[in-house]
Amino acid sequence: MAFDLDNDRSMQGGFNGLIGFRLIDWAQDQSTLEFDLAPRHLNRSGVLHGGVIATMIDAACGYAGCHCTVPGNVRLAVTLSLTTSYLAAAAPGSVRCVARKRGGGRRVFAATAEVYDSDGTLIALGECMYQYRPGSEDPAGIAPPSLPAG
Amino acid sequence: MAFDLDNDRSMQGGFNGLIGFRLIDWAQDQSTLEFDLAPRHLNRSGVLHGGVIATMIDAACGYAGCHCTVPGNVRLAVTLSLTTSYLAAAAPGSVRCVARKRGGGRRVFAATAEVYDSDGTLIALGECMYQYRPGSEDPAGIAPPSLPAG
Amino acid sequence: MAFDLDNDRSMQGGFNGLIGFRLIDWAQDQSTLEFDLAPRHLNRSGVLHGGVIATMIDAACGYAGCHCTVPGNVRLAVTLSLTTSYLAAAAPGSVRCVARKRGGGRRVFAATAEVYDSDGTLIALGECMYQYRPGSEDPAGIAPPSLPAG
Amino acid sequence: MAFDLDNDRSMQGGFNGLIGFRLIDWAQDQSTLEFDLAPRHLNRSGVLHGGVIATMIDAACGYAGCHCTVPGNVRLAVTLSLTTSYLAAAAPGSVRCVARKRGGGRRVFAATAEVYDSDGTLIALGECMYQYRPGSEDPAGIAPPSLPAG
Repeated sequence: MAFDLDNDRSMQGGFNGLIGFRLIDWAQDQSTLEFDLAPRHLNRSGVLHGGVIATMIDAACGYAGCHCTVPGNVRLAVTLSLTTSYLAAAAPGSVRCVARKRGGGRRVFAATAEVYDSDGTLIALGECMYQYRPGSEDPAGIAPPSLPAG
Repeated sequence: MAFDLDNDRSMQGGFNGLIGFRLIDWAQDQSTLEFDLAPRHLNRSGVLHGGVIATMIDAACGYAGCHCTVPGNVRLAVTLSLTTSYLAAAAPGSVRCVARKRGGGRRVFAATAEVYDSDGTLIALGECMYQYRPGSEDPAGIAPPSLPAG
Repeated sequence: MAFDLDNDRSMQGGFNGLIGFRLIDWAQDQSTLEFDLAPRHLNRSGVLHGGVIATMIDAACGYAGCHCTVPGNVRLAVTLSLTTSYLAAAAPGSVRCVARKRGGGRRVFAATAEVYDSDGTLIALGECMYQYRPGSEDPAGIAPPSLPAG
Repeated sequence: MAFDLDNDRSMQGGFNGLIGFRLIDWAQDQSTLEFDLAPRHLNRSGVLHGGVIATMIDAACGYAGCHCTVPGNVRLAVTLSLTTSYLAAAAPGSVRCVARKRGGGRRVFAATAEVYDSDGTLIALGECMYQYRPGSEDPAGIAPPSLPAG
């Protein structure tokens, strides 16, 4: 059973939904997010806000580490640290972030991400460290009813 | 002449406005931002999204380095790198970020920020590096007509 | 009983000793390290190697989080992430690093550090995240015989 | 003409030489460093000091961005920011760091590095930002006599 994008409430509500991220790929240890650049993503200089990219990296890296081996289950993690390096301005169009879990132990994991604009230019790089929430250490994940309602 | 908060379009539009930041203090080498925690700021775990905090740190540190010695002028900078460390979950209520420019040269500057929740708990720390946009190297800043319309 | 600097083998051997760090202050949640700039600390440009500063920040922040409430005991931690921002070149003479533990939970903690040269100029800033080694979670620490011999 | 490893004084003297790094590969936008784990590289817990890894990442990323298109020339850069994430303990033996320049403009560049132990396990990741020293902006580099003596 594949991940049901239409029912992924994580991208519909909350801050990810506010920005307009789409989870276009999600598998063990990897994820890809995308969004379409719009005026609401800009800073006072009229260019893509660095915070949008940092948020995208945080979201994508978190997903990369939280895919469950048991379909339908969930894993949750909190971010410990998040680093972003900015390399280039984004061209108009869609922005894509590709994230991979890179290692770690039972409780803590690291992931990295690369962000590309619609021209395929690498515009940012990210490096994140997370701690699984208690109960989410197992790769199988846990049944979704344990998810908070928010 | 003090900074006119009501006319600060940077906090009205774009990504900062979408989140709801208020620039409650801005002076040479420092700034303070605030926002009220709401459902749109949460992640899929139902807690404050790490990206909101990273965005707040980026915005506050950028402001700290871009205050002009000549009132009414502007300075613009692009983020080179942004680091956030997460220390605690945020209590309900308003979140406050205090940023300071810490050093650097004519073209590049560093700033740090501390983020507190409504209980006064330190919930995150940030460290950023910026490059002034060409024309913005001088502490006096430049006349606002040169600002892009966006 | 105060910390016995003369018997602190951590600064005599290993990598800290190779660089020549001195632990000049150590108390609950804080530490101060110092070393004298010498040719062995330089990079191929003939200036202080960024790695010396990163190492100093890592060492000082680790000490800040590992002071024990019970004198003579030890706490050990592993670094999860380490960030350094470089602000200025160092003047000749001694370099000093002041570190503070800033928060965290039972297993993970964050610390920050400021590095000054002999003129008192802030030359670097650091932000670190650590995980206590199993057995070192308690602020009291553990009896030193459990320390590895190395 | 290939890079003459035997004559690379950067790895013989200074801090890189103190640690014992070997520059085993250097080409446009990439470099590989290696060293053999020894007691002088350890911290007070008896494991590889995080500062050795941070130093290695800084050195390797700097080399990756400073290879010259004109053999025998040099380019110099100063580190603006350096981030390291630690993923696993190192096995005994040699440690290897592979770095790549990832982007940037004329004055500033970003590079990333991966550090592996002798088992091939990814033990650390790094992300760095540099500024070319005045005169080193051109990919051709400059003639070595302009190098400082140190």
